[in-house]
Amino acid sequence: MHETELRVRYEETDQMGVVYYSNYLVWFEVSRAEYIRSLGTSYKEFERHGVNIVVAEAYCKYELPARYDDIIIIRTNLTEVRSRSLKYTYKVLRKVDRKLLASGYTAHVFVGRNGKPVKIPRWVLGYIKKKN
Amino acid sequence: MHETELRVRYEETDQMGVVYYSNYLVWFEVSRAEYIRSLGTSYKEFERHGVNIVVAEAYCKYELPARYDDIIIIRTNLTEVRSRSLKYTYKVLRKVDRKLLASGYTAHVFVGRNGKPVKIPRWVLGYIKKKN
Amino acid sequence: MHETELRVRYEETDQMGVVYYSNYLVWFEVSRAEYIRSLGTSYKEFERHGVNIVVAEAYCKYELPARYDDIIIIRTNLTEVRSRSLKYTYKVLRKVDRKLLASGYTAHVFVGRNGKPVKIPRWVLGYIKKKN
Amino acid sequence: MHETELRVRYEETDQMGVVYYSNYLVWFEVSRAEYIRSLGTSYKEFERHGVNIVVAEAYCKYELPARYDDIIIIRTNLTEVRSRSLKYTYKVLRKVDRKLLASGYTAHVFVGRNGKPVKIPRWVLGYIKKKN
Repeated sequence: MHETELRVRYEETDQMGVVYYSNYLVWFEVSRAEYIRSLGTSYKEFERHGVNIVVAEAYCKYELPARYDDIIIIRTNLTEVRSRSLKYTYKVLRKVDRKLLASGYTAHVFVGRNGKPVKIPRWVLGYIKKKN
Repeated sequence: MHETELRVRYEETDQMGVVYYSNYLVWFEVSRAEYIRSLGTSYKEFERHGVNIVVAEAYCKYELPARYDDIIIIRTNLTEVRSRSLKYTYKVLRKVDRKLLASGYTAHVFVGRNGKPVKIPRWVLGYIKKKN
Repeated sequence: MHETELRVRYEETDQMGVVYYSNYLVWFEVSRAEYIRSLGTSYKEFERHGVNIVVAEAYCKYELPARYDDIIIIRTNLTEVRSRSLKYTYKVLRKVDRKLLASGYTAHVFVGRNGKPVKIPRWVLGYIKKKN
Repeated sequence: MHETELRVRYEETDQMGVVYYSNYLVWFEVSRAEYIRSLGTSYKEFERHGVNIVVAEAYCKYELPARYDDIIIIRTNLTEVRSRSLKYTYKVLRKVDRKLLASGYTAHVFVGRNGKPVKIPRWVLGYIKKKN
């Protein structure tokens, strides 16, 4: 489990006065990147070695609105590791009162430089297993 | 069923050379707005009368990447109408070959000016029933 | 001179109830792409041939706010063509009353696949001169 | 002078492999918010008291591309304070080598709840003068 913090940007709000719904998926991505960094590597390193992770599915359930200037915590878990795919789950919390704002998941597949699905490389699995 | 067309913007791509995944949710919103317009009203009209529709859930399954300058068709259906909630389903197609790029759904609840859930107003239901 | 139309997306608004200021630069890009299409080619074609046009400068003056669901006209002019650079100017109008919402410009340089500045290729100039 | 740090998000890149140009304006906004926070108040506080600051002009000059996962420093200065307007200037640096990636400015006017321009309230000036 990994926690990432960010602060809501004005750009992320909409005229309802709350964070526009697609931004939670951006936050999921930010938190995935930090999750991978916490393993001792980075998604940038993956790409440098020709390993791309593409999104196959994304889901978000919205409980309470995030608002401008809120500090947000994203709790990220890698809940499934298969030979060619990964699944992350997320909880989005408002820091000040630890209220759950949203939860969701993303499923991913690994592709090579040519865009074709590949098995998760051993060296990537090495990083994942250190943590899990 | 309603179809909306849009062209992929450079801004919507990412360094993988494809459309970044959260933008599909933006396209879902564009297509919902056009769906409501096809009923003879508009979401702007709803808000003017104090009717806000908030997103409760969003899901997207990614099949093939959308790319810069592609013309995209979003096929939208209102598949569920309850007393306080709605559900839309979407198919995202590439116009040139009608390939399915993504599919998904969003669930919505109605809230009043104070943010509390309300029943779908009769006049709104009137527009919905004309079509369905 | 070229005119492009688009409709303001909910995603483009912010909690002030108007379009967030950086989105005008996205609209400038959409209108540049349509300008190039009106020449009989496309920016996608440019990139396919290894011609990338990068932004060197961007300026926008905001007169009146664009709002959700407004139909917007972007009037685009290619006002300067040098051996290695271009300049576009823009006027953003609200369609319903032709009021000026914003105006601005962007300056661009041509770079090759390696990211180094290059002269504007002859074949690209050919398209530009047809119009101007 | 105030410095804010942020990390480039995947969402902010485009298919040229660099940060899309409008995102620098989003970063300017993030840095303005942190500048105001460094004065001992916040833009959220301003809005709570009916003080809105709208953007009148924005300019950005792009020197070197920001890339995914880069840590970015935004150096913000409040360079002009008039009775009804403000001007900020920005320098965007890559943290690792302190290279200048972009510079720019934004000009702002104060408006009341009704959207009409107003003089900068005394209590807001109080915060500004503490620093400058």
